[in-house]
Amino acid sequence: MTGKSSPRSIVVLSAHSGDFVWRAGGAIAHAAETGAEVRVICLSFGERGESQGLWADPDMTLETVKIARRKEASEAADILGAHIEFLDLGDYPLNVTSSAFDEIVDHLRRAEPDLLLTHVANDPYNRDHNLAHETLLRARMVAQAQGHKTDAPPIGAPQILMFEPHQPEMCGFVPNLLLDITGVFDRKQRAMQCMSAQQHLVDYYTDLAQRRGVQAVRNGGARSIRYAEAHQRVFPVVSEELI
Amino acid sequence: MTGKSSPRSIVVLSAHSGDFVWRAGGAIAHAAETGAEVRVICLSFGERGESQGLWADPDMTLETVKIARRKEASEAADILGAHIEFLDLGDYPLNVTSSAFDEIVDHLRRAEPDLLLTHVANDPYNRDHNLAHETLLRARMVAQAQGHKTDAPPIGAPQILMFEPHQPEMCGFVPNLLLDITGVFDRKQRAMQCMSAQQHLVDYYTDLAQRRGVQAVRNGGARSIRYAEAHQRVFPVVSEELI
Amino acid sequence: MTGKSSPRSIVVLSAHSGDFVWRAGGAIAHAAETGAEVRVICLSFGERGESQGLWADPDMTLETVKIARRKEASEAADILGAHIEFLDLGDYPLNVTSSAFDEIVDHLRRAEPDLLLTHVANDPYNRDHNLAHETLLRARMVAQAQGHKTDAPPIGAPQILMFEPHQPEMCGFVPNLLLDITGVFDRKQRAMQCMSAQQHLVDYYTDLAQRRGVQAVRNGGARSIRYAEAHQRVFPVVSEELI
Amino acid sequence: MTGKSSPRSIVVLSAHSGDFVWRAGGAIAHAAETGAEVRVICLSFGERGESQGLWADPDMTLETVKIARRKEASEAADILGAHIEFLDLGDYPLNVTSSAFDEIVDHLRRAEPDLLLTHVANDPYNRDHNLAHETLLRARMVAQAQGHKTDAPPIGAPQILMFEPHQPEMCGFVPNLLLDITGVFDRKQRAMQCMSAQQHLVDYYTDLAQRRGVQAVRNGGARSIRYAEAHQRVFPVVSEELI
Amino acid sequence: MTGKSSPRSIVVLSAHSGDFVWRAGGAIAHAAETGAEVRVICLSFGERGESQGLWADPDMTLETVKIARRKEASEAADILGAHIEFLDLGDYPLNVTSSAFDEIVDHLRRAEPDLLLTHVANDPYNRDHNLAHETLLRARMVAQAQGHKTDAPPIGAPQILMFEPHQPEMCGFVPNLLLDITGVFDRKQRAMQCMSAQQHLVDYYTDLAQRRGVQAVRNGGARSIRYAEAHQRVFPVVSEELI
Amino acid sequence: MTGKSSPRSIVVLSAHSGDFVWRAGGAIAHAAETGAEVRVICLSFGERGESQGLWADPDMTLETVKIARRKEASEAADILGAHIEFLDLGDYPLNVTSSAFDEIVDHLRRAEPDLLLTHVANDPYNRDHNLAHETLLRARMVAQAQGHKTDAPPIGAPQILMFEPHQPEMCGFVPNLLLDITGVFDRKQRAMQCMSAQQHLVDYYTDLAQRRGVQAVRNGGARSIRYAEAHQRVFPVVSEELI
Repeated sequence: MTGKSSPRSIVVLSAHSGDFVWRAGGAIAHAAETGAEVRVICLSFGERGESQGLWADPDMTLETVKIARRKEASEAADILGAHIEFLDLGDYPLNVTSSAFDEIVDHLRRAEPDLLLTHVANDPYNRDHNLAHETLLRARMVAQAQGHKTDAPPIGAPQILMFEPHQPEMCGFVPNLLLDITGVFDRKQRAMQCMSAQQHLVDYYTDLAQRRGVQAVRNGGARSIRYAEAHQRVFPVVSEELI
Repeated sequence: MTGKSSPRSIVVLSAHSGDFVWRAGGAIAHAAETGAEVRVICLSFGERGESQGLWADPDMTLETVKIARRKEASEAADILGAHIEFLDLGDYPLNVTSSAFDEIVDHLRRAEPDLLLTHVANDPYNRDHNLAHETLLRARMVAQAQGHKTDAPPIGAPQILMFEPHQPEMCGFVPNLLLDITGVFDRKQRAMQCMSAQQHLVDYYTDLAQRRGVQAVRNGGARSIRYAEAHQRVFPVVSEELI
Repeated sequence: MTGKSSPRSIVVLSAHSGDFVWRAGGAIAHAAETGAEVRVICLSFGERGESQGLWADPDMTLETVKIARRKEASEAADILGAHIEFLDLGDYPLNVTSSAFDEIVDHLRRAEPDLLLTHVANDPYNRDHNLAHETLLRARMVAQAQGHKTDAPPIGAPQILMFEPHQPEMCGFVPNLLLDITGVFDRKQRAMQCMSAQQHLVDYYTDLAQRRGVQAVRNGGARSIRYAEAHQRVFPVVSEELI
Repeated sequence: MTGKSSPRSIVVLSAHSGDFVWRAGGAIAHAAETGAEVRVICLSFGERGESQGLWADPDMTLETVKIARRKEASEAADILGAHIEFLDLGDYPLNVTSSAFDEIVDHLRRAEPDLLLTHVANDPYNRDHNLAHETLLRARMVAQAQGHKTDAPPIGAPQILMFEPHQPEMCGFVPNLLLDITGVFDRKQRAMQCMSAQQHLVDYYTDLAQRRGVQAVRNGGARSIRYAEAHQRVFPVVSEELI
Repeated sequence: MTGKSSPRSIVVLSAHSGDFVWRAGGAIAHAAETGAEVRVICLSFGERGESQGLWADPDMTLETVKIARRKEASEAADILGAHIEFLDLGDYPLNVTSSAFDEIVDHLRRAEPDLLLTHVANDPYNRDHNLAHETLLRARMVAQAQGHKTDAPPIGAPQILMFEPHQPEMCGFVPNLLLDITGVFDRKQRAMQCMSAQQHLVDYYTDLAQRRGVQAVRNGGARSIRYAEAHQRVFPVVSEELI
Repeated sequence: MTGKSSPRSIVVLSAHSGDFVWRAGGAIAHAAETGAEVRVICLSFGERGESQGLWADPDMTLETVKIARRKEASEAADILGAHIEFLDLGDYPLNVTSSAFDEIVDHLRRAEPDLLLTHVANDPYNRDHNLAHETLLRARMVAQAQGHKTDAPPIGAPQILMFEPHQPEMCGFVPNLLLDITGVFDRKQRAMQCMSAQQHLVDYYTDLAQRRGVQAVRNGGARSIRYAEAHQRVFPVVSEELI
């Protein structure tokens, strides 16, 4: 059986604790509904660069932001049906230490994923995103190595989906998957509403999902599609199906 | 239901009468086995540029080559399970006249395809291939137009697969679909053996199918894959599946 | 004085009679307000491929569609403050004859433009757009030639703006100009409302203008920007200004 | 008001102490003349890799080279009208430490820049240049973060200009700004003459400025332009002007 | 023996009658000196678009320009050591008719070239250049076809060199050959001086040859190189040599 | 004399101890036969990620793998005619420390190479390869610096060849050199047979050499070519020869 089957185990590498909700919430909820184990790894809380709503309070501290962001992201993950883990590596700039890298490799080994999700390779506005991308490609490689000995065995060759960046045309993002998320969009919406530090993005990503839904229909998808997410696969799909 | 279903109607636009066999024979046979109607349109017989085996005979004439090539391609199409039509537009260089273009549009309208196959956009070695690509993109556009009135109604938005060119790395070909053709490879092989004017290519494309099969397994496909074909989709896939 | 002055004469080459409204209406209205002569050349009426609203009537004829489209586009041009001319070259596919090409060159010569607007070079969904792009690049070249003798003298080296295609990320569109159209957006909206054959696009392009407006502010524009249009310049800007 | 106003505060990140003179001296002098505060940060003195003229003396030491280079660059900055600061991070290879990175962020915060200048992203001949580019993109991101607390407030979203590398065609450099520096070229020339360690470059960059000036006129600039500098903007321009 | 031997027969396809002198004069003279037969085919005289010096005379006619341009180009070819032929297909825009195309194929067949030279594929300033490029790729393909019957036999697979366009960075030109033309530069200079209609280019191309010469030395060439021409090969080089 | 002479000194930077054999064994043997000194630097043994054959033994340890891999690679280098050195920096992920980097620079200085070989810049499957590429570009730059003082003098500007990655079309690899290795292929084959940990690759790379050989003939190489290797040069070639 080739890649056409539903994924059973997914790991999502999110630079900041909100990214997985906005950009991949539909994919996560969809996979969870079809029985996949989804594990989200947040490299940071986005505590410095992506928590405007919280910093509006002049008495806010970094620790309080982190606590709030952890709570929000945990709730969102729960709604989407995913496990979540926080590595607390700092943001703006993100710093992936050698031990954190090893931890990510261990995660991949234990999860035995058949699908990975992360950011694009080159976002001129946000270099933390790029580092998350590079980290996942390197961690995937190490987790595959026969001679890297851990309790869990080497992983196979899971596909990587890059989710849509905020300014796709500035990042060389050319989607090759428009994922129908109509059936789980209410979940994504509820998950987005958890993110109180970035409330201005809820409408934005609802509109985007509608636009990508219209695009999906125009590109040959079923008329019933109302919401979609755009993703770009890094590797070729292996399939028994032509379409 | 989204694009994950098997295609029901496929049109293949082949610059020369051998191209569809070498480059897309597996895709065609696979689709035919799963119940699709597959229609191959050969723009030319490849009579001047791709019939070395026949021209080795010093008494050969253009008409005789065309007859032989038509016979070979028809037999190959039959084995693959496809209908075939020949527009006889000349090769090296191919010349798509205005009336031939209209005929191609009519074909698309009548076929109501949910998938199209053709060549890449930019092959420095073979400009006939590029013209076939451009012709298909234009014909698809016209066949979609509400105000282009024919007996058959406007078509939807079928995906286009570009099949693998002879020198992929010189043509900007980056496959995003490795199609498992293990189950139909014997058919492709028999179809290839019909092409007496280009016998030297049978081994080449058998080896290529094996290499693409190995690549498919390495990219996460089932261990049972032995033969594959590489294709590149022009438009994003619309899907309910993540992998 | 360098390019920073406002343009005095603009020519817009529009493949179909609606394109200039949806994609460049803001640029046109803005230029007209600041005193520029703007001339729109519609290569076709988009009568076959871009008049869904009209073809919904089963008794519709091609001539009636053309009349309606001419009327709509003329009204829209009037609201935007532009002259308009229709070459009626057919659409889906567009066919730029040799005499039509000469006529376009004559237009450029008479207009003495310091700015040109047209479509992108490579839209996989719409090859008429590509042909308009190529036609303008060629016509600009001929209009510059010292030895091409007409009553009007050779033109200079006007910049070309490519306006935003419907699926920018599929067309290699990377905007390098976000034009503030806040002050003229009511005009663009009224012009869009003239286009009865494509009413479904009014909301789409209103939303797009808002999103590009938000992007403009995020990219350093004034907080007062509410609506913007994205364009991509073909040639480098010549300027006395760094920003 | 949009980006068309003159910049008021500019930060230039120069990998070596000569780069800002050769590649951006015109832009700096022009901005200074129109009232901008320009701050140059030299990551290194280019003491090892870009001081051939000094190393011709067999008794030369690293410290003496640094002193000479500091003096030259300070004089050049003075002529151009810019402040200058030296971080002394070493060259060939440049090493941007974590504390140096923080210092650059602090600089950006204090300067409140509306424009940044630096090197291209990918120069196969000189990887120090690439590191300067990456450093600026990351530092800009951190300086924007609401939760990065310093005395100075977060910065906005300043444009980044990449100045012309030595072999533009090998670095993917496609200029989208030809800056008229005719009025300040004497200043740039005097600044270049300070750089005694690289005297062979004065003629080269004078010729280049003339060629770019000719190109500016050919691309529609005023006939009076005699000298220009080529730059490439990273982000789209936000503007009220079409040209 | 592989490609390292000197070419014996070269065909140059020049859109206008001056292009081969400015952009490939050194390559032609060098090849001629080492014994190659070089044949230049001028598709047009550049009579309308590239003869400013002649059109300065208000009484000039198209026929007189053509006569002058033919004379100049013939003299230049003579100095360079090349045969020359004029197809007189018109310029701005160039129009390659079907019969002219056949004639070009015949030329290739008779010349049995082991090297071809022409323009780049995509020059936004000059679409005649692009058409020459496309024409040569197509003609090469036809001349190779076994079934295209002429007195001369099919050609092999000659390399194509694209010579340097006027604005290389705007045309995606990335040179992979810096040809040492020091030994024949006096010839190129004399040939350039024949082109009275474009005298302003002599200095430009002398300077360019010097700059490319400096670049050649910096890229590992012999210190004795003073003049070079930049070219870009379309196909991979086949060689027994690594450097 | 320009680059057409045979190289006299070559340095190969290999991420893992097998890469130089599979991907560049022909180039190395060819250069050694023509009298060049070839020095291979293995950054790691590929002990964890590229030694499947050895890890099949459940009692295998990292140290034993390293010893076996060192022995194999040394024998292979010996057969190819090259010196070899092992830096033992670890693999999956490779870690190039600051002192290891200095050692590589010293190697380059001592070798005075006129040619360098290494991996491509961007392989999505194997980030160790990318790091080797980046390391070589940086080390070349430092080794050129006048002010980097070592016993050996600064090097010139040696060309860099990137050898063919496993999935060329996924890595943006576009070969511009097809090296005829027919005369030394038996050596490459014997060297490959030393690599017992990766025996499955011997057939693969034999087939690849044949395919590249066929491609070489089709691209104009001598009919006698039976085996070739594809390489991509980073910098333009400086040459007195056109082909």
